[in-house]
Amino acid sequence: MTGRDGGADLKPEGNTPVVILVRPQLAENIGATARAMANGGLFHLRLVAPRDGWPQSRAWRSASGADRILDAAEVFETVDEATADLHHVFATCPRPRHIVKTVLTARGGAAELRAITVRGLRCGLLFGPERAGLDNEDMARADALIRYPLNPRFMSLNLAQAVMIMAYEWYMAADATPPRTLMTNETHVATKGELDNFMRHLITELDACGFLRNEQKRPGMVRNLRHFFTRGEVTEQELRTLHGVVSELSRSRGRPSG
Amino acid sequence: MTGRDGGADLKPEGNTPVVILVRPQLAENIGATARAMANGGLFHLRLVAPRDGWPQSRAWRSASGADRILDAAEVFETVDEATADLHHVFATCPRPRHIVKTVLTARGGAAELRAITVRGLRCGLLFGPERAGLDNEDMARADALIRYPLNPRFMSLNLAQAVMIMAYEWYMAADATPPRTLMTNETHVATKGELDNFMRHLITELDACGFLRNEQKRPGMVRNLRHFFTRGEVTEQELRTLHGVVSELSRSRGRPSG
Repeated sequence: MTGRDGGADLKPEGNTPVVILVRPQLAENIGATARAMANGGLFHLRLVAPRDGWPQSRAWRSASGADRILDAAEVFETVDEATADLHHVFATCPRPRHIVKTVLTARGGAAELRAITVRGLRCGLLFGPERAGLDNEDMARADALIRYPLNPRFMSLNLAQAVMIMAYEWYMAADATPPRTLMTNETHVATKGELDNFMRHLITELDACGFLRNEQKRPGMVRNLRHFFTRGEVTEQELRTLHGVVSELSRSRGRPSG
Repeated sequence: MTGRDGGADLKPEGNTPVVILVRPQLAENIGATARAMANGGLFHLRLVAPRDGWPQSRAWRSASGADRILDAAEVFETVDEATADLHHVFATCPRPRHIVKTVLTARGGAAELRAITVRGLRCGLLFGPERAGLDNEDMARADALIRYPLNPRFMSLNLAQAVMIMAYEWYMAADATPPRTLMTNETHVATKGELDNFMRHLITELDACGFLRNEQKRPGMVRNLRHFFTRGEVTEQELRTLHGVVSELSRSRGRPSG
């Protein structure tokens, strides 16, 4: 989607959840996990018994610059060792298991991660190996399970994609971007007075050229034009352009511009 | 995260947004895109001028069974052709550009996609090439931009990860999973009466063995035990187990069980 950003700015910020890959198989997925973590503002990566050992240069090649996360990754033999210094552990789990455990959505889990970390407690997120997922012993060590609401007809979720969704929800849980806004750059959204000024200009010219000569239809036509121009936000710059369009179209007809 | 699910159940369901990859470079990313689409319940894939041509067997190898999406993918020469039959087009865009355009978050965009598709209108989602992203001409064809709130210090988002986030938000926009629940399987959450019955059993045995012999401390100790056992939901099965634990511990001391 975009080129590399280098990742030079990556560093541990405050108390962020630890991503724990349990028995990961493919180094490429470990690298892609680091990249996804960087996207979501996570930094701490732990590996439990990576199948092909550690470090693996292929991980760095697939991290797209999130090298510092891989450089700082810690390796453990067991889940118990990897979680010993943590206060809360959540286990991602795609399927129902025969255990009694709290189940959170990714969004619900992210909200709890935020609520726990602001208390100064350390959280960990367990992700299982690519093929089999976490086993029952791993899940028995978790305070709660996180199960993503996703298409039950196609459950095969890539490991780094699973990390991406949690990293995204972690970031979103503290994000205040309005869901809809108008990007205006150097210009500003026009006021209704500025829009009305343009409408008067337009109507004057349309009267002059005869477009509105049908007196019976004129009010409805003017109203419909106003409906169109108020359908979305319009900027001051766009209104200046529209004034110019109307003026130039009028001039090219050989009439004086309004 | 899990093994393959085959993807035999994948089929177009109702009116779902079309994912349009513009000038994609890597076949692996096209395959991973199909997998992510399947995860989020999307089906319709269009490719605009894929760099290495189409089809590419590497795409199928990285789709993890989402073959039907790739089999049905359509190829176009231009964005105009790929969007000609659509009513609304959103363009994913990681950076601010010098254009005036509505900007949505992924979540806000997903809500609008749902609102538009229930009206029977067809939507498309444009994703740009891996390195450069969409160009200004591509974005001028979109009704709105979608920009993900993600770590501004690390903007390098993998193409299939970008698709995953939108597919996930599309799925979530219609999902009603409670953010927190207790998975209980065959058993049920116990009532307060059942819990109280266990507390009486426990206290009876603790009185019998002398654990609560300090009359002054007894009320506080009992209250603290009650606090502990009411901290989270407990199931009927767990209460039966706890009754058994108390009975057996009492019996092994040579005392009659309560």
